[in-house]
Amino acid sequence: MDFKIYNTLDRKKELFVPLNPPFVGLYVCGPTVYGDPHLGHARPAITFDLLFRLLQNLNYKVRYVRNITDVGHLENDSDEGEDKVAKKARLEQLEPMEVAQYYINRYRDAMKYLNVLPPSIEPQASGHIIEQIEMIKVILENGYAYESNGSVYFDVEKYNRKFHYGKLSGRVLEEMIAASRDLDGQSDKRHSADFALWKKASPEHIMRWNSPWSVGFPGWHLECSAMSTKYLGEQFDIHGGGMDLMFPHHECEIAQSTAALKHESVRYWMHNNMITINGQKMGKSLGNFITLEELFTGNHKLLEKAYAPMTIRFFILQAHYRSTLDFSNEALSAAEKGLDRLLKAVSTLKKIKPSSESTVDVSSLKKECMEALCDDLNSPIAIAQLFEWVRIINQLHEGEQKITQEDLDKLSNDMHEIVFDILGLRDDSIADNQNLVSGLVDMILNIRLDAKSKKDWATSDKIRNELQNMGVVVKDRKDGYDWELE
Amino acid sequence: MDFKIYNTLDRKKELFVPLNPPFVGLYVCGPTVYGDPHLGHARPAITFDLLFRLLQNLNYKVRYVRNITDVGHLENDSDEGEDKVAKKARLEQLEPMEVAQYYINRYRDAMKYLNVLPPSIEPQASGHIIEQIEMIKVILENGYAYESNGSVYFDVEKYNRKFHYGKLSGRVLEEMIAASRDLDGQSDKRHSADFALWKKASPEHIMRWNSPWSVGFPGWHLECSAMSTKYLGEQFDIHGGGMDLMFPHHECEIAQSTAALKHESVRYWMHNNMITINGQKMGKSLGNFITLEELFTGNHKLLEKAYAPMTIRFFILQAHYRSTLDFSNEALSAAEKGLDRLLKAVSTLKKIKPSSESTVDVSSLKKECMEALCDDLNSPIAIAQLFEWVRIINQLHEGEQKITQEDLDKLSNDMHEIVFDILGLRDDSIADNQNLVSGLVDMILNIRLDAKSKKDWATSDKIRNELQNMGVVVKDRKDGYDWELE
Repeated sequence: MDFKIYNTLDRKKELFVPLNPPFVGLYVCGPTVYGDPHLGHARPAITFDLLFRLLQNLNYKVRYVRNITDVGHLENDSDEGEDKVAKKARLEQLEPMEVAQYYINRYRDAMKYLNVLPPSIEPQASGHIIEQIEMIKVILENGYAYESNGSVYFDVEKYNRKFHYGKLSGRVLEEMIAASRDLDGQSDKRHSADFALWKKASPEHIMRWNSPWSVGFPGWHLECSAMSTKYLGEQFDIHGGGMDLMFPHHECEIAQSTAALKHESVRYWMHNNMITINGQKMGKSLGNFITLEELFTGNHKLLEKAYAPMTIRFFILQAHYRSTLDFSNEALSAAEKGLDRLLKAVSTLKKIKPSSESTVDVSSLKKECMEALCDDLNSPIAIAQLFEWVRIINQLHEGEQKITQEDLDKLSNDMHEIVFDILGLRDDSIADNQNLVSGLVDMILNIRLDAKSKKDWATSDKIRNELQNMGVVVKDRKDGYDWELE
Repeated sequence: MDFKIYNTLDRKKELFVPLNPPFVGLYVCGPTVYGDPHLGHARPAITFDLLFRLLQNLNYKVRYVRNITDVGHLENDSDEGEDKVAKKARLEQLEPMEVAQYYINRYRDAMKYLNVLPPSIEPQASGHIIEQIEMIKVILENGYAYESNGSVYFDVEKYNRKFHYGKLSGRVLEEMIAASRDLDGQSDKRHSADFALWKKASPEHIMRWNSPWSVGFPGWHLECSAMSTKYLGEQFDIHGGGMDLMFPHHECEIAQSTAALKHESVRYWMHNNMITINGQKMGKSLGNFITLEELFTGNHKLLEKAYAPMTIRFFILQAHYRSTLDFSNEALSAAEKGLDRLLKAVSTLKKIKPSSESTVDVSSLKKECMEALCDDLNSPIAIAQLFEWVRIINQLHEGEQKITQEDLDKLSNDMHEIVFDILGLRDDSIADNQNLVSGLVDMILNIRLDAKSKKDWATSDKIRNELQNMGVVVKDRKDGYDWELE
């Protein structure tokens, strides 16, 4: 099936043609691990998890690399200021890697809750200093960087004379320079648009490595160029990330890779759009910053209740990844109801009794869902198609339509494949039911007490034996009963 | 409370005195990630998880570093032959880091099943090449290593003239050399006992980095010296690992750190003993190699059934970590029964009715358990003490002994603290009960059908409403009923 991707480079949908089929190389920018995973992490993770699952379903062998930024990402994404991870470490009086490890673990746990598959390789920036140094050497050799006072900067103007700095984001270098408030000559940079490849560490900077230029640390943008080249090669298929990373991060990645390799490395750039909260941009200063744990527990002043991880996933999939998505209690509650209807219909499939003929055409479900998904990941249209089938499944169950065993098997397989394998939803409804078990057993034992009080020993014994067979051991006591699971 | 550790360096129990209380630095050798986690991984992980939990319970602030070996560990733990991870990658036609990531994920999942806490920092060897190169430079400068044909070797004989190579394992260098089958002059090494710090990569070697000596990769032993120094400092408190790592791995670590830092870095060396299977050493060639997944599923010819992760954990804790431990179906089944009795007693605590006086002395439980654990992690004695209390808890429940509310609260707190927080056990008995819920609901609805057939509408409605309150929605059908969870 033809698979089309909207390529940010050309601002249009293009047929996806992998470089080396059946292999596909996919790189996605992962988290900077200095805080708890939040809503802004969920959207790219789920978007590119859908892509990863879909490509695998289309029989591609995907090497999916999603990095972890644990060094070099300075405050305000700038070239000055404190390292985000190191700052958190200073505030918490911990070793930076202890902070990074803590938030890496939190991120991985959250991804598991959201049923996001682990990537094939999850490299850390601090674990690839040597690869970054090697790349800086090549960029210097090729003449697109300069050393200044122990730091190394990328020479954007020189690069722009031969290549096109701004091709991804559509920004124009002259305008960027004019709009810049940096005054040339006040920093180690020659020009305000230049960006750091290597920064000399100030004495109080704790994350530092030896390099040919100084004891220091790599610039933020460099890790992705170095690690994607290492693990996916000098050219690879797809690079994804949030739209907020398009400039400067991805623009700088293109410049770095082009300056080092003399050609571009990424063929398809994909960007997911942003999330808003009740119509506002999410931000710590706005008080509407919601972590995933807060969503899962409902513990935030903007939340009317807790929302299960699958509700979040479904909510995100219900919008196209290139549309903005607004979080509100109403929208999340609607997603929760919708997901519930969908999962119930999947369970209902088991209860449908087959007929000798079919009044429904089961071939349309998978075909239409796959067509939608292969049209630049149009998950909302695929989900609409699923709901069409929810209606039909309920009709089948009520006997208002008929289906043969063979068609029922196909319908069931296709439904499972789309809902669970590709969309990556999961039925958590019966997972956490410790209280339910206790409630049900107590209810049964009260019925039994009632029978005993009526001297209905047959019923009392029958209940006791049936429970015993299910592994529930009942011990009668003078004032009632005890029970426990075998 | 005084905490005593058996220090392998001196072959005796010593009072544990941390370098910088309340901080404790703990380093443990983690897995080489080229295969599924197996029984041999479970014992050190659980042993040092117990240590980590106990130290935290004693109010130490522990920085626990457990590394991941993803490069440099050659076949047969030697200085020649193929890299274990790279070999697996070649066989599976994958990028080495894809293999490493896969088995890292498998290892982490298994550790979660075993309720092993994640360490504070989990550094990868391939992520610390630059730190290893820096350490080699210092060892070369200090005169305890030499370059040979692009590789760098540690000069064991020269080191042994000033320090003592063999002090941890008790081996004698002269005997090692005499017993060696290596002929001097046939490799790049000067002497057979020397070991690689850096190896020049052969053309087919895929994991390779630039260094001052060659494009190559670090020797296996070096990563632990480099990463422990980086994250725990030039001197730290405790280094743990399996007894099989004592020589050559830990002996070489001591030599490297001493040669680089001019003093030893580890104060207490702890080694867990080995696991045997039905009395035999575990080995792939012996056909008795059991992965953790095989244990959890029972899918291995030597296993009569599946054993839950908590059974494995409890089984390992029932032996002292310095004793050998023999796995057999009988022993595992006994552990399963014992754990069940222990966890049931913990649940029984909730059902005990307090009296106005106590006939039991609840102060002994925690005191005796902690004394045992602080005596070089004597978990079997702590567990024996717990079983003493299982007996007493059952007597309390049967009314054969009495306890006040205050004592019951203390007993309950102490029992939870020892069993769950320190020993790290977990009650999984009610976790997976989807079938049980279905069975119980069906049982109740059959009782209801029975009531309906007797035209006992009151009971029928009562059951329906009670189920509804618990979130079980009943839908009557002409041929019976449907139900679903809300």
